[in-house]
Amino acid sequence: MSPSPVVDRRHLDFVLYDMLDAESVLRYPRFASHSRETFDAVIELAHRLAVDKFLSHNRKSDLNEPRMVDGKVELIPEIGEAVAAFNEAGFAAALADEARGGMQLPFLVTSACDALFSGANPSTVAYPLLARAAANLLEAHADASQKDRYMQPILAGRWFGTMCLSEPQAGSSLADIRTSAHPQADGSYRLEGAKMWISAGDHELGENIVHLVLARTTGAPAGVRGISLFIVPRFKVNADGSRGARNDVRLAGVNHKMGQRGSVNTFLKFGEAGDCVAELVGEPNQGLAYMFHMMNEERIGVGMGAVMQGYAGYLNSLGYARERRQGRHPDQKDPASLPIPIIEHADVRRMLLKQRSYVEGSHALGLYAAMLVDVSLQDPDADTRHEAELLLELLTPIVKAWSSDRCLEANEIAVQVLGGYGYTREFPVEQCYRDNRINPIHEGTNGIQALDLLGRKAMMENGAPLALLFDRIARTIDDASRDPTLAAMAEELRAMLARAEAATRAVAERMRRGEVRRGLANAAHYMTLLGHVAIAWMWLWQALAAARRGDDAFTRGKIATCHYFFAVELPEAMLAAKLVAEADDSAFAFSAEWF
Amino acid sequence: MSPSPVVDRRHLDFVLYDMLDAESVLRYPRFASHSRETFDAVIELAHRLAVDKFLSHNRKSDLNEPRMVDGKVELIPEIGEAVAAFNEAGFAAALADEARGGMQLPFLVTSACDALFSGANPSTVAYPLLARAAANLLEAHADASQKDRYMQPILAGRWFGTMCLSEPQAGSSLADIRTSAHPQADGSYRLEGAKMWISAGDHELGENIVHLVLARTTGAPAGVRGISLFIVPRFKVNADGSRGARNDVRLAGVNHKMGQRGSVNTFLKFGEAGDCVAELVGEPNQGLAYMFHMMNEERIGVGMGAVMQGYAGYLNSLGYARERRQGRHPDQKDPASLPIPIIEHADVRRMLLKQRSYVEGSHALGLYAAMLVDVSLQDPDADTRHEAELLLELLTPIVKAWSSDRCLEANEIAVQVLGGYGYTREFPVEQCYRDNRINPIHEGTNGIQALDLLGRKAMMENGAPLALLFDRIARTIDDASRDPTLAAMAEELRAMLARAEAATRAVAERMRRGEVRRGLANAAHYMTLLGHVAIAWMWLWQALAAARRGDDAFTRGKIATCHYFFAVELPEAMLAAKLVAEADDSAFAFSAEWF
Repeated sequence: MSPSPVVDRRHLDFVLYDMLDAESVLRYPRFASHSRETFDAVIELAHRLAVDKFLSHNRKSDLNEPRMVDGKVELIPEIGEAVAAFNEAGFAAALADEARGGMQLPFLVTSACDALFSGANPSTVAYPLLARAAANLLEAHADASQKDRYMQPILAGRWFGTMCLSEPQAGSSLADIRTSAHPQADGSYRLEGAKMWISAGDHELGENIVHLVLARTTGAPAGVRGISLFIVPRFKVNADGSRGARNDVRLAGVNHKMGQRGSVNTFLKFGEAGDCVAELVGEPNQGLAYMFHMMNEERIGVGMGAVMQGYAGYLNSLGYARERRQGRHPDQKDPASLPIPIIEHADVRRMLLKQRSYVEGSHALGLYAAMLVDVSLQDPDADTRHEAELLLELLTPIVKAWSSDRCLEANEIAVQVLGGYGYTREFPVEQCYRDNRINPIHEGTNGIQALDLLGRKAMMENGAPLALLFDRIARTIDDASRDPTLAAMAEELRAMLARAEAATRAVAERMRRGEVRRGLANAAHYMTLLGHVAIAWMWLWQALAAARRGDDAFTRGKIATCHYFFAVELPEAMLAAKLVAEADDSAFAFSAEWF
Repeated sequence: MSPSPVVDRRHLDFVLYDMLDAESVLRYPRFASHSRETFDAVIELAHRLAVDKFLSHNRKSDLNEPRMVDGKVELIPEIGEAVAAFNEAGFAAALADEARGGMQLPFLVTSACDALFSGANPSTVAYPLLARAAANLLEAHADASQKDRYMQPILAGRWFGTMCLSEPQAGSSLADIRTSAHPQADGSYRLEGAKMWISAGDHELGENIVHLVLARTTGAPAGVRGISLFIVPRFKVNADGSRGARNDVRLAGVNHKMGQRGSVNTFLKFGEAGDCVAELVGEPNQGLAYMFHMMNEERIGVGMGAVMQGYAGYLNSLGYARERRQGRHPDQKDPASLPIPIIEHADVRRMLLKQRSYVEGSHALGLYAAMLVDVSLQDPDADTRHEAELLLELLTPIVKAWSSDRCLEANEIAVQVLGGYGYTREFPVEQCYRDNRINPIHEGTNGIQALDLLGRKAMMENGAPLALLFDRIARTIDDASRDPTLAAMAEELRAMLARAEAATRAVAERMRRGEVRRGLANAAHYMTLLGHVAIAWMWLWQALAAARRGDDAFTRGKIATCHYFFAVELPEAMLAAKLVAEADDSAFAFSAEWF
């Protein structure tokens, strides 16, 4: 049996049911109409659609990137067909209420499905996933009329959506956006400005596009406190929800990217003719808060997207390593002997294991975080909900940044396993590598994620999220310490937790002394430290779950990959802890003139 | 002054003259007609040509890759113009004897020049550099008639050359090549076979192409002992050196690569019509030995090429970081204040420093190795020559593999510094990243380099090369330990040397016990260990040389980058040493069925 090119289904099922106990979310009333059977059916459907409709044109959409023709975006037809199939199968409304025609699925199961599409073709799935993100934001903050007129057509798969945050001069720093919104007598606004890096910003896939745009109302305070959220439809929308005339938002350019070429990335201009009609969502000046409200879920999505490109590369290189014969063992050079499959070479196995430990470790973490979203929203107990929220705050930047850094590295290794062939465009690993390169950049750069992790999340509520996380990890450690094959690893992780605690304390003390800049200067190393701890936890947890399953090749593989991660990868966290704890200033104190 | 996009000339001059004392090679009679002035003039010329003729079409050649039209390779005209300028300036014959019209330059100075071209446009410079490599091989092993007929036209810049080693089924494992050579009554051979991954394998840049081809003569022993080296000209060559009819070597396909798209990479078929005329070079069955004779120089070239892509990315991201304003310090969030240049953010400085420590560290190591080539060939003292040879054997795989791994990582970081812009094809860093991705693969994969380093070089002559290297490093340590600002780093490196010695000893003992496979299983970690030690040495040496120069921004930058490398990067070697010394078996013992 040749492995699936998107995921090892044994691993996915194992994480969902043996490790995370996904069925536990069935206790929430919102998911009453679901069961393990409906979960499995929807995952199976997603997997089939992902392979049949998305993977099938992944290379073609890379080779034929969207073009601007007469001011319109031209896409290859397979993109529209795949998106239609996605929407027809109900994935546009996977999370939505059944009353609105939605599947009312847990975020956990939805994430598992999205990831399959993302692994198959990250560019094409961007169109419907951005639309769904817009719908989610409207569900949370729009009024009833806006939901009916703008959200419902998205859930039905007829309209699409975007998130318009960045501007040419303001990417990471949203405090500096300039797009302005001028109130009109009828309660609407007129927008003026330009937005950059807008994915799926213009296309002909549906009847309309609902842009969700951050802008400043006239006289709003400077900085992040003066940002409001607006609906700007591509075509104006009448009070009865019918489509009106073209709105004053114009496609001003298309960015030419290294990868993810199938998803059009645009430069949009709003209100050049002074007639860009916009509706305020919720209260003025709350725009960034509304956006951040959805941020955890969006960032988990980006992290999972990165994981799945890593996974695709891993599976491709694994398949190649099993087939390709080349060379012999170092103590067996008889040229008359048959060359061995390269998976037999220790260094190739090392490269495969490194990829596997990254992609399956961070896949498990992403799904765990997705499950926390469900608990934080659905649990009847307020304390349980709050705990899930705190864990989620802490883990989200790790899911986004650690996964995207390391799974890009996994893609780099996949190319290496294939050698010269891996460097050609005839094999899929080079596209994975290019496609994945965006993930450390967008949805908050990984540098921003590290600052968020150390400066905000680790410091919030007197360190409550970290204490909670470490308590959860300690439970796994305690369980593992009773298993002789896992006990040594359990103690290593316990020691690493102590180092992470000490490093965090050192930063907190420094910040209390007012040394904020120096305290945060090694945020990237702190991300390595906590990320490695979190992934080591995921592996120990998987090893425990595997040990309970009984002894077979899959189980042994899980436990041995855990051993690999602890032996080869985890020690890096020790170095990171030292740099953080000692507040190493080698970069901080380096003057710009010395370069 | 905006920085040069290819190199920081202050750094290049500093390494050549302050650190390595490049003038010391002037004592060799071969370089008697040279002086620091001629060195500087030729470097200046190379730098100017690199920027004016090579960099100027680097992006265009990426966007317009070579096409096969009617069986011929079509290149953009700028490639031919740049190559002609390179050859007219004498670089085709940079190393050749003055008697043959060559510049008779040291390998050190030639390498410094080649690197500038390589940083400007690695694809275009591949054509003349491969030709020169073929000429070098002929100079070393061809007979007088072959030199006159095949080498001289290359030195004159009229003909080109290739190295034909790999075949579709045999890339890393040359023992398994199948191309066969059948002796003819007139002493010539007829070749039959196919060669894969042949760079510059067919084009119309010159009058002829001299393919240097590895093949087996009829009845030759199996494996590497039965491989001979042949000259196969694209057009047959008459006894008087004039060009004859087209030879039976055919362009069968062109590979479509992720990067380095301007240099055509070909699949060649030899003798399909039974008339592929070939001439044996030297003795039969010595082909691989002849190839390996040039291997150090070729691998240094690949390593330096990787360094220079890293350097180009570093300088581009440095320039961007100085110009781009975004965000504010974490303790200074006043939205009315002007955003700061991103170089002021500690994490951006960290990313720049990481790049700098990799590219300037490995640039220094590459030039040091290049100088050892000159010493090994020119020194009047046999012991000195032998020592240089041993050091070169040991350092070459490091120059190739460590540089290409880490300078690719530097390119990955350069993209990150530019954010969304870095991901577009409008900025040069994404091309650097794609272009550089080949370097860990070709000219012996980095996995092969690691096996070569640990299994052959570290074990040869009872560890003599390693003892020699560590002795040289210890001298720098002793000097540095007398400087109070460097003393602590000196002791850290001394401790790391001890770890490296112990790890090497552990492997040697294991191999003596017959555990060859397990002993070599962690070769990649051994590469990290010795690579980090070598680069730390380069930085300590640079810091010492800088300290002698007096106090200015450049000097401070050198010393502070050394501090950065020791604080943040070098500790990784400790982890690698542990894995090697303990013969960690987490990848070695992982069964293929467990994946």
